[in-house]
Amino acid sequence: MDMQTTFRSRLYAAGLLFPTGVDGLVGRNGVFEQIFTGLESAITRAGLADRPEVMRFPPAMSQKTFERSGYMKNFPHFAGTVHCFCGDDKAHHQLLGKMARGEDWLESQEGADIVLSPAACYQVYPIVAQRGALGPDGHLVDVQSYCFRHEPSLEPTRMQLFRMREYVRIGTEAQVLAFRADWMERGQAFVDTLHLPYEVEVANDPFFGRAGKLMADSQRMQNLKFELLIPVNDGAGPTACLSFNYHQTYFGDTWGMVNADGTVAQTACCAFGMERLVLAMLRHHGFDPADWPAGVKQTLGFE
Amino acid sequence: MDMQTTFRSRLYAAGLLFPTGVDGLVGRNGVFEQIFTGLESAITRAGLADRPEVMRFPPAMSQKTFERSGYMKNFPHFAGTVHCFCGDDKAHHQLLGKMARGEDWLESQEGADIVLSPAACYQVYPIVAQRGALGPDGHLVDVQSYCFRHEPSLEPTRMQLFRMREYVRIGTEAQVLAFRADWMERGQAFVDTLHLPYEVEVANDPFFGRAGKLMADSQRMQNLKFELLIPVNDGAGPTACLSFNYHQTYFGDTWGMVNADGTVAQTACCAFGMERLVLAMLRHHGFDPADWPAGVKQTLGFE
Repeated sequence: MDMQTTFRSRLYAAGLLFPTGVDGLVGRNGVFEQIFTGLESAITRAGLADRPEVMRFPPAMSQKTFERSGYMKNFPHFAGTVHCFCGDDKAHHQLLGKMARGEDWLESQEGADIVLSPAACYQVYPIVAQRGALGPDGHLVDVQSYCFRHEPSLEPTRMQLFRMREYVRIGTEAQVLAFRADWMERGQAFVDTLHLPYEVEVANDPFFGRAGKLMADSQRMQNLKFELLIPVNDGAGPTACLSFNYHQTYFGDTWGMVNADGTVAQTACCAFGMERLVLAMLRHHGFDPADWPAGVKQTLGFE
Repeated sequence: MDMQTTFRSRLYAAGLLFPTGVDGLVGRNGVFEQIFTGLESAITRAGLADRPEVMRFPPAMSQKTFERSGYMKNFPHFAGTVHCFCGDDKAHHQLLGKMARGEDWLESQEGADIVLSPAACYQVYPIVAQRGALGPDGHLVDVQSYCFRHEPSLEPTRMQLFRMREYVRIGTEAQVLAFRADWMERGQAFVDTLHLPYEVEVANDPFFGRAGKLMADSQRMQNLKFELLIPVNDGAGPTACLSFNYHQTYFGDTWGMVNADGTVAQTACCAFGMERLVLAMLRHHGFDPADWPAGVKQTLGFE
């Protein structure tokens, strides 16, 4: 395929994305963000009747919280730890010398007690757990944050830092399974209002290493994760833009979340990959939102 | 002062902020974000007539770009480098062992080629430079991103990860000085529409180490940085919520930005500390935006 006509090269040529010199790390222009904001508002409207508690988090979380989440067991290759300089004038002088000589100056950096968030919902659980036992209706949270995954890629849909929006349900098995079944329907209805083609499939996370293969098989066989996939990239399979996840008691056990009846709380979430959805819109409806179908513009509040 | 009545404790008690276990790293609720969004829109309106180019960036930037910016010379103590796990199954097993024993598992993390952004405008300059010489009118950019500064603090206004909005002017000395003088007026007029008390003062950045003191003195004596300060925290001086910065040819020299007449481009910026502005609003107008003065609500698009 001619490099000048790839979806990726057209995004840069149109000024929708700005390169930063690192694969999977890109800036966005005003049009891209306008679509993003329209999608955020539409997702808010789609969930508003359920009166979720709104939580928004910065792109990083406490290292202690991150460690306890168990993320390093399953996805160590994706995580991004944050390190800082804690030295004095002399150490600073040495660091600048290393940098000037093109040597590795990062090795003297020390842990800053924070880790980039791997998923928006990871920050929710300890906060909900700390409030004590859930009420009889359990809890529902609307959360958003930047998330990090270290997987440099030329695919525009595979960003290292991206925004994830989620509805997170915490409660009994019946409550969270009903939530997930409901959002698998609502998610598809939502994507219908965006006039995008899609398919929904059983999926599995990219667990690390040899043991990871068993984890992935188990997740798939138990139908714990479904994805809504939309064709976006050139010559590649469709891209997961929404996911519908059932965590069983994993986070309930980890954080000590308890239902009103004393049982361990279960959790499920419906997650939206925000930049992926924007890219899907650009791919299928073109680069100028003014030319998009009236129904789509209405969904995004553009008219 | 009674701990239960500090501004900070009241923010948590009211649910406006969520603790994450790390000082200076907090979640925000829907009310906080509604004020944030209103302020963003108002800042957009205040600059719209000048038709700036809109750029939005993720919270991190290329390590190469960061190194070239010279940030580590002046503010090494604030920077946050991002590190990742690049090992195999065996290394993973060792890492988990260290974590389980409470040992330092971060030392085997390797550089991920990205660094958290120290300021929103740092991502702008290399992109503008790469386009070649500026036109006769120079350039104007509206940029926003999360920024990181490693300075754990209990002051609600001193967050480690926060959002910075900036108007950035690039051009001749006359163009950028006119821009800064203009925005020092417009910034004050903007804060007037928010009904907030303020003062504008010459300021200096917290440069690192012994040499840093000279840098700070020089910056202050040359009037390179002014800050708009608003009283927010208990028993502390007022907080810088806007800053008006003149960089002379620092970024022009660093990135090779050139004016139409062949001279090195100068730069200036007007920066808004977004979370600080939200906190100032909550401090002065109360925790329920429904009760805020009609003019303030109008500025934020709340009615």
